[in-house]
Amino acid sequence: MTGPKHSCGVVGIKADFDIASAMHTALMIIQHRGQESAGITAYNDGSMETVKGNGLVETAIPKEDLVKLRGKVGVGHVRYSAAGQKDVVNTQPLVATSSFGSVAVAHNGDITNSEQLKQKYMKEDGWTFHTKSDSELINKILSKHLSSVGDPVKAIRATMSELDGAYALTILINDRLFGVRDPYAFRPLCIGKIDGGIIVVSESAAIDALRGEFVRDLEPGEICEITKDTYKSDIVKPEHPRAMCMFEWVYFARPDSVIDDRGVYEVRKRIGEVLARECPADADLVMPIPDSGRAHAIGYAIQMGLPYEEGFMKNRFAGRTFILPEQSQREFAVSTKMIPIGRTVKDKRIVIVDDSIVRGTTLKKLVAMLRKAGAKEVHVRVGSPPIIAPCYYGVDMTTRDQFIANHYSVEEIREILGADSIGYISLDGMVEAFGFKKEDLCLACTNAIYPTRIEGEECRRD
Amino acid sequence: MTGPKHSCGVVGIKADFDIASAMHTALMIIQHRGQESAGITAYNDGSMETVKGNGLVETAIPKEDLVKLRGKVGVGHVRYSAAGQKDVVNTQPLVATSSFGSVAVAHNGDITNSEQLKQKYMKEDGWTFHTKSDSELINKILSKHLSSVGDPVKAIRATMSELDGAYALTILINDRLFGVRDPYAFRPLCIGKIDGGIIVVSESAAIDALRGEFVRDLEPGEICEITKDTYKSDIVKPEHPRAMCMFEWVYFARPDSVIDDRGVYEVRKRIGEVLARECPADADLVMPIPDSGRAHAIGYAIQMGLPYEEGFMKNRFAGRTFILPEQSQREFAVSTKMIPIGRTVKDKRIVIVDDSIVRGTTLKKLVAMLRKAGAKEVHVRVGSPPIIAPCYYGVDMTTRDQFIANHYSVEEIREILGADSIGYISLDGMVEAFGFKKEDLCLACTNAIYPTRIEGEECRRD
Amino acid sequence: MTGPKHSCGVVGIKADFDIASAMHTALMIIQHRGQESAGITAYNDGSMETVKGNGLVETAIPKEDLVKLRGKVGVGHVRYSAAGQKDVVNTQPLVATSSFGSVAVAHNGDITNSEQLKQKYMKEDGWTFHTKSDSELINKILSKHLSSVGDPVKAIRATMSELDGAYALTILINDRLFGVRDPYAFRPLCIGKIDGGIIVVSESAAIDALRGEFVRDLEPGEICEITKDTYKSDIVKPEHPRAMCMFEWVYFARPDSVIDDRGVYEVRKRIGEVLARECPADADLVMPIPDSGRAHAIGYAIQMGLPYEEGFMKNRFAGRTFILPEQSQREFAVSTKMIPIGRTVKDKRIVIVDDSIVRGTTLKKLVAMLRKAGAKEVHVRVGSPPIIAPCYYGVDMTTRDQFIANHYSVEEIREILGADSIGYISLDGMVEAFGFKKEDLCLACTNAIYPTRIEGEECRRD
Amino acid sequence: MTGPKHSCGVVGIKADFDIASAMHTALMIIQHRGQESAGITAYNDGSMETVKGNGLVETAIPKEDLVKLRGKVGVGHVRYSAAGQKDVVNTQPLVATSSFGSVAVAHNGDITNSEQLKQKYMKEDGWTFHTKSDSELINKILSKHLSSVGDPVKAIRATMSELDGAYALTILINDRLFGVRDPYAFRPLCIGKIDGGIIVVSESAAIDALRGEFVRDLEPGEICEITKDTYKSDIVKPEHPRAMCMFEWVYFARPDSVIDDRGVYEVRKRIGEVLARECPADADLVMPIPDSGRAHAIGYAIQMGLPYEEGFMKNRFAGRTFILPEQSQREFAVSTKMIPIGRTVKDKRIVIVDDSIVRGTTLKKLVAMLRKAGAKEVHVRVGSPPIIAPCYYGVDMTTRDQFIANHYSVEEIREILGADSIGYISLDGMVEAFGFKKEDLCLACTNAIYPTRIEGEECRRD
Repeated sequence: MTGPKHSCGVVGIKADFDIASAMHTALMIIQHRGQESAGITAYNDGSMETVKGNGLVETAIPKEDLVKLRGKVGVGHVRYSAAGQKDVVNTQPLVATSSFGSVAVAHNGDITNSEQLKQKYMKEDGWTFHTKSDSELINKILSKHLSSVGDPVKAIRATMSELDGAYALTILINDRLFGVRDPYAFRPLCIGKIDGGIIVVSESAAIDALRGEFVRDLEPGEICEITKDTYKSDIVKPEHPRAMCMFEWVYFARPDSVIDDRGVYEVRKRIGEVLARECPADADLVMPIPDSGRAHAIGYAIQMGLPYEEGFMKNRFAGRTFILPEQSQREFAVSTKMIPIGRTVKDKRIVIVDDSIVRGTTLKKLVAMLRKAGAKEVHVRVGSPPIIAPCYYGVDMTTRDQFIANHYSVEEIREILGADSIGYISLDGMVEAFGFKKEDLCLACTNAIYPTRIEGEECRRD
Repeated sequence: MTGPKHSCGVVGIKADFDIASAMHTALMIIQHRGQESAGITAYNDGSMETVKGNGLVETAIPKEDLVKLRGKVGVGHVRYSAAGQKDVVNTQPLVATSSFGSVAVAHNGDITNSEQLKQKYMKEDGWTFHTKSDSELINKILSKHLSSVGDPVKAIRATMSELDGAYALTILINDRLFGVRDPYAFRPLCIGKIDGGIIVVSESAAIDALRGEFVRDLEPGEICEITKDTYKSDIVKPEHPRAMCMFEWVYFARPDSVIDDRGVYEVRKRIGEVLARECPADADLVMPIPDSGRAHAIGYAIQMGLPYEEGFMKNRFAGRTFILPEQSQREFAVSTKMIPIGRTVKDKRIVIVDDSIVRGTTLKKLVAMLRKAGAKEVHVRVGSPPIIAPCYYGVDMTTRDQFIANHYSVEEIREILGADSIGYISLDGMVEAFGFKKEDLCLACTNAIYPTRIEGEECRRD
Repeated sequence: MTGPKHSCGVVGIKADFDIASAMHTALMIIQHRGQESAGITAYNDGSMETVKGNGLVETAIPKEDLVKLRGKVGVGHVRYSAAGQKDVVNTQPLVATSSFGSVAVAHNGDITNSEQLKQKYMKEDGWTFHTKSDSELINKILSKHLSSVGDPVKAIRATMSELDGAYALTILINDRLFGVRDPYAFRPLCIGKIDGGIIVVSESAAIDALRGEFVRDLEPGEICEITKDTYKSDIVKPEHPRAMCMFEWVYFARPDSVIDDRGVYEVRKRIGEVLARECPADADLVMPIPDSGRAHAIGYAIQMGLPYEEGFMKNRFAGRTFILPEQSQREFAVSTKMIPIGRTVKDKRIVIVDDSIVRGTTLKKLVAMLRKAGAKEVHVRVGSPPIIAPCYYGVDMTTRDQFIANHYSVEEIREILGADSIGYISLDGMVEAFGFKKEDLCLACTNAIYPTRIEGEECRRD
Repeated sequence: MTGPKHSCGVVGIKADFDIASAMHTALMIIQHRGQESAGITAYNDGSMETVKGNGLVETAIPKEDLVKLRGKVGVGHVRYSAAGQKDVVNTQPLVATSSFGSVAVAHNGDITNSEQLKQKYMKEDGWTFHTKSDSELINKILSKHLSSVGDPVKAIRATMSELDGAYALTILINDRLFGVRDPYAFRPLCIGKIDGGIIVVSESAAIDALRGEFVRDLEPGEICEITKDTYKSDIVKPEHPRAMCMFEWVYFARPDSVIDDRGVYEVRKRIGEVLARECPADADLVMPIPDSGRAHAIGYAIQMGLPYEEGFMKNRFAGRTFILPEQSQREFAVSTKMIPIGRTVKDKRIVIVDDSIVRGTTLKKLVAMLRKAGAKEVHVRVGSPPIIAPCYYGVDMTTRDQFIANHYSVEEIREILGADSIGYISLDGMVEAFGFKKEDLCLACTNAIYPTRIEGEECRRD
């Protein structure tokens, strides 16, 4: 809740009906993964049509355009834009035409060698780029391989062999739909069966919303072709372990999604329980920072045997503040977005539970608001270890400077926040709550050890 | 959560600074009371200017208009529109010019004798009406009295003597600001001190958001003139008890507001506790229907000693469905708006707690979704008695036909909902949770006994 | 072309089909009479519905609202707003509900005793006013009379007896439609037969656009009830002559309209001819200030035997500049709006013909542009006498200060404009071109003698 | 006026001030060349920023975006879109990033070998295309040459050697600005000096609007680098004559523009004069089809010694109908867009003069309207020979089927139009009016002989 974090969301559907409306619903469900642009590309009768734009799904994809969009197969995308990429040309899906036909790509993640690849292709083959999006690069490399090898699976495999970093992709090659997950499985991607078709999407909640049946998560390195009845996979088992982003469970994903066989709500509750064992607090009640800290707080309260209270009122009538890139907008919005319930917090010793601390600025204000409302003690508990290292795989935490934990000790952070005590879950405690092997997770933002080679950073494979 | 209920919200501010921005913030905070139109009228340099329109505050009052709005005193309004009143002419505040000057009125409630008053004035004085809003009627009667008696307080008192029904008003008479609460105190209205001024507003949460200090609720029948430093009241103590709308605490108001010295969140939690004592359930966990049933469920869970779980995921990226008048829109939206968390509910005996049941259509779907997700048992608990009678005081429940409890017994309702058990709180139990004397509440929608005379209905004064 | 002048436009249609689309077409055709707001009120099945808003017809009345507007009878309006009246509440038609039913009024003109009437009704009957529009006043007085006398024609007659000034009205009283023209016939209003109905409208061009047949102009003081097949009139012949606004022919009306049996284009051409006889010029060619001066220039050229040239290129992609109230916007827009054609004007002795001069600011720039483009001589000819007195009957020229002819002699004006010569048509010459008796025209803006009594001004009846 | 014809418009400015506002003005002035999208790309501080969108300049380039656009050099574009290319990705300017840096291209014309070039590069170098615009192709080929040869002029020259067809280009290569005109000079492009900078633009009128000085037209095959003080050219004199599009003077260009030393207004007037000599008419008056036929009609009237009358009233409040691609929209709009002035045409023998006839549908309606208004005779005169062959160089007349003159004889056309007589100017007559050598014009649409090789068409070089 208390800092800049983001991802994107992708979806693909192939069905025996026009997919525009189902696609729209799916994008609404994964809207939390990106609120700055949205788009749908559908294939119909020999060509692709795209409806996309800036803003939330309901703005970017107007009803009047949606109803005109024909096609029984398509891909969709919701995007969070890093600073300087707000131009509408950067919205996805991006369609490319090559001698093989049309290709549309929707991408979640970050390609770590994109600059090198761009330079290489610009120099060697005279390529040009029209956007700042990795999606264009992936699309072009894929189109090139399609033109030479012809077979889509082979072309995707060849493209993957060039790409480093994180990518969950939905790809439309003429009328054929593919879901692709990188060999580290950084970002989630799963398949579901809906009435009359098949969906591949970032989060399982979208399958539920369409009243479908969850089938399974994609495997690391899997290329999965989706037809309206079934799907067919091509997997080259990677030699290295996975590197699933811990933040998907800690913060990004919806509580009602299940990712790689771990229910997000359950994981968060278990984090709360472990946190309570590791950092108990002598207090009267436990409160979440809504909405992201709710499950963590419930777990903490149950484990501590303390009452759980919804002591912050969150104003529904505004977007998730922190997801806007500019710091200034974030700071202004806080006072109307979250207000403590005076009678609940007055004279109480309170534990507030949040999922993580990046900058700490919002949290500092909330602690102050609790004090002003009469709280006797405020104990901060955090559902992830201190964030200290940048992410190169799709989370908008790209400089070390922004992390409060890089500048101050835990005790100093407590003082800055104005809390009576502070407790972070330990790395091992968090891993325990996930129930994965530690080596299957990307924990780089907390320990600065990266699953892939990044110039200037330590790689766990070394 | 499960039916049509609404109110409106009003605010007035007088300060030593331009009030546009503070007014905007206050309207954002009471936005939940009305999402179909919003407006601000400010007085500056001899005349009034109004910015208003349909939609949420951010749409109805565009930034570019807001920044141009000058004035150190003004009134504001958020509106829920009943069917057929969507025309922008019905938006408030409404400004009238008379020989006394300009008058702007913002109104929350329903005038029960408005048709008689309109007919009388149309016939006797040739008046015309341009809107379907009670606000116009109040404004005109007030303006007439102002023109004859001159003194604002006397004119307001004379106006009140003509009006029956429910009204919380903020009134701007040239540069003078008044807050008025009807003698039954149906709707809330309170005063707060903010930096450089005074605010009168429907809910105390707006005072908190402006970092102000709550002063007190208005008394029944109080006329309170607001200046930038202080306020001055004229109260004629009514001879009858109050008739505060029970639904303000049960559903309408924000949990972080305090109304008539009762914290809304606290009351809801106590309702949950009483409900647990009256209707316990043999279950594994307790879940709220978010957002309105959350506090009730927490109280229920604590009292029962059962775990509280956030088992429904609510999609932030859509408005509160039920507040749109058309049934069809409500039904369509449900499946993407609330999704059960599969792993949390599977194989569990679940208590779901909601604030009330009007039609029961949404609740029926949610029970079915829980069953589909694998819940073993579903027990419905309701934080108010069965709703059986229409409201004439500002809640959009105007016909007996719509109430499921008017057509079916409790046992039949259980069957319709598909629940394993159902339990409503008793009227006395709910009153106990409020902590008011029973005669000080309007409970008409649950017992069909009305605090004022309504043709064809039983009045408690008879 | 060279100053602030405006009017409004009204229409009413009764037919055996839904009139929304025909009404929309008619408003598009009279759009030049008012570009700041537009609206339609239709009566259907017992009640009136209104679609209106700020901006041009296409903005103010969106297609999606238009297609939903039902009703076989209705009134419409396009408005020019004087400064400070841009608030959407001032848009017309305005609907009032009284004990007689619903009344909608669309008004073109200015009521000269509106302030007195408002004061009287506010004081005597406690009335309030919600807009700054005369339309509201007319509507209220009419509704009052309707409530007392019942018969619409009598009520309209009674209303007219209270009103001073200029008014062409279309009135909807429940499902009955009336056209009304004031006893001076200041503003135009005519009747036409269209396929399946009858239209009453400010200008005959709207009848042509609907492929209808022009029937006749309304008489001074006529009240005409329109049915879908015929019309029925009630006329009280006024004892005074007419006072038809000369500016309707000189500037306001479309060239393709016929007003009071005078074709607008023809009148303008005749003005040009008279002007040529009165103020000939030794020149090489004649150019209009497009679009308003075109017909005047053609007449001038023919009479002089000089070539007519379209030597100014007007940019279609911007509104009529001068009609926006703020001077600053007007000045900025000029340079891109009208550009002389270099090769046509270079080394030439040029006559430019405009309809009138109010401020002279635009004309001054155009003369300078001609000089810069190489014109050898520039002779200004003007199709109306110097404007020296304010208008109280609906033209936005309300102060004496703005008229250049009030500050300078004709020779000084020539010098200010930078022209080689200047020639205004004489008053008698203009009257001759009209072909009316002088006493049947309102010429007050050119001779300061007013047809009705205005405080502080000379009245021709004295 | 009576058929589908279009082009685009381009501009480039380099100055010592931020060019956004001047660019905006220039685009407004050339707006008639394309009304479906508009855009500006500016270079500032190492990178390019683009503001563009669908619609007119004022919609596509909102003020709030314009004021934020920084940069002292940039290119701009207005576009007419052929059917199926309305997607916003096809808007220009289009920016490409290559190893040489950024390149933006704005293009007017049609590349006749674009499909072959695209196929070649897709196959040989694995290129992909993201738009249907020739501009992307030109940009990519140019970027490729820039990456290899480095020098911009050499790279542009190399690009030109690959392109066939028509192109007037403004090109931004990092901070360097170029104007380029194809070796046939199909489309206009000229240079002007403005205060503080230099502009290169499709039409000279834009220079006048910016109060600048026209310098000269670009030569066929010229590459001209623009700096803020001067310009430097590289010309390879083509071995073939020019092929300047006759339609620029006949219809596209503004009357106040001068193209290749021929004033557009003058040429049109001379066309009218020749037409009068070739096809005189025994009539009472001459009327233009406004706005495009005005100058032709003036010339015709002068030569014939007949009165010139503005007998059609054109409604300013709608776009140029014919420029919308869909036939249906065109037909619907006619009746409200142009109305004959009854009193002017009644009982008259009328000559109407238009610039050209493509389909004849609009003209047919206008003749019928004149008859209905009482015209005794209607004589049609046309300022260009019958259009019989498609254009491959940027005019939206791409199939032979649409031309009425391909289906009917001149006498049959007269009958279809319902005219009493019809007269087209002869090809030689039109050429005489231009004052160019016949071989320097592209007259392909009238004689089916093409200046460049087009598969299946006769080429004049053969």
